Amino acid sequence: MADELVLYSNPMSRGRIARWMLEEVGIPYRTEMLDFGVMKSPDYLAINPMGKVPAIKHNGTIVTECAAVCAYLADVFPHAKLAPPLPERGDYYRWLFFASGPLEYAASNRALGFEPPAERQAMMGYGNYNMTLDTLEYAVSANPFIAGNTFSAADVYVGSHIAWGMQFGTIEKRPAFEAYWKKLEHRPAHIRATELDDAAMPAKA
Amino acid sequence: MADELVLYSNPMSRGRIARWMLEEVGIPYRTEMLDFGVMKSPDYLAINPMGKVPAIKHNGTIVTECAAVCAYLADVFPHAKLAPPLPERGDYYRWLFFASGPLEYAASNRALGFEPPAERQAMMGYGNYNMTLDTLEYAVSANPFIAGNTFSAADVYVGSHIAWGMQFGTIEKRPAFEAYWKKLEHRPAHIRATELDDAAMPAKA
Ligand SMILES: N[C@@H](CCC(=O)N[C@@H](CS)C(=O)NCC(=O)O)C(=O)O
Ligand SMILES: N[C@@H](CCC(=O)N[C@@H](CS)C(=O)NCC(=O)O)C(=O)O
Repeated sequence: MADELVLYSNPMSRGRIARWMLEEVGIPYRTEMLDFGVMKSPDYLAINPMGKVPAIKHNGTIVTECAAVCAYLADVFPHAKLAPPLPERGDYYRWLFFASGPLEYAASNRALGFEPPAERQAMMGYGNYNMTLDTLEYAVSANPFIAGNTFSAADVYVGSHIAWGMQFGTIEKRPAFEAYWKKLEHRPAHIRATELDDAAMPAKA
Repeated sequence: MADELVLYSNPMSRGRIARWMLEEVGIPYRTEMLDFGVMKSPDYLAINPMGKVPAIKHNGTIVTECAAVCAYLADVFPHAKLAPPLPERGDYYRWLFFASGPLEYAASNRALGFEPPAERQAMMGYGNYNMTLDTLEYAVSANPFIAGNTFSAADVYVGSHIAWGMQFGTIEKRPAFEAYWKKLEHRPAHIRATELDDAAMPAKA
């Protein structure tokens, strides 16, 4: 029997990251688009108690958190070669966790107008916004791709953050970020994913 | 030649999580304790541009971000059986990324007295503090360990958050959290790691 794979998403959400990853993997999947109101219904809270998208269900296994969805799919579908071999995952994990932790929250807190006071930055996992962005710049500049010489699931995740962040103004448009994104945006899987989610957008009134 | 493995840490830091993981793996390593001032020196910024501990260097590979250190070591030292097989890592990644993202920042923002305003919680990756803690409670209650029936690197990471959070008051002392931590705290590797870091604490004046 073929794998059963469902993506729970919304076209105006981080679900676009999971969709891009699914298109990179290239296996068939079914999409359930959820309105934001529906995400806090008991049915969906049973899938993700956070009441948030994206989530995937793969043969009964539920995975939430975008970065986890990327890492999981890369491992389960090794034909797509989207994760380095097990002994060589230093950069892969380093930047996946950096982007889903420090980077995401530095950018989100900034969007909400909150910066940790100087004397608390040593305990704050991202320190401050500038140091986090400098570290991101270091990460995207060190190698052709974020985990080394080849494209991986970590690029789907980190690249999405950079593209969305630059678009919404939560990540500064530094030349290094633009150069990195240029390497990713024209990938066929990204283009396909974008078209699918654009087509699922609610019609403008 | 034996592996060269260095832990950069401070006994009063998240470095304790990495130490516990190293003790679970059971391989030899060398520890460099860094004062908080020294972490922003050029030498150490070359290792971690965030100027933060922990970091590890393993035969030239540098890994930062506690959760990444746990995931990396579990893969590189498979004899310790601290990660599920590749096709079965749904819960493993889900809760590692949940704890290093939503949980860490819900707890840290709360410690700094900041809660996202209600109308911004849909875009905020952790939503709000209560929903994040409810999800954590779901996670630790679903199975004997966070990634299923057996202990894994994800328990080192999630367990550490819960123990530290309850101690410092950033995570509520719910019975489910206390029951989960009881399963972990007496592990020989945790006891050894705690003794080593306690012994490295600066002497009280
Ligand atoms: N930490 C989660 C964040 C997911 C998230 O915040 N999703 C938003 C849309 S981008 C959502 O579903 N919001 C609906 C809500 O909170 O009610 C991840 O990385 O996947
Ligand atoms: N996101 C990092 C956070 C690391 C972190 O914030 N470490 C603190 C100690 S617990 C630190 O080194 N602070 C020193 C500083 O920021 O100057 C991780 O999970 O490893």
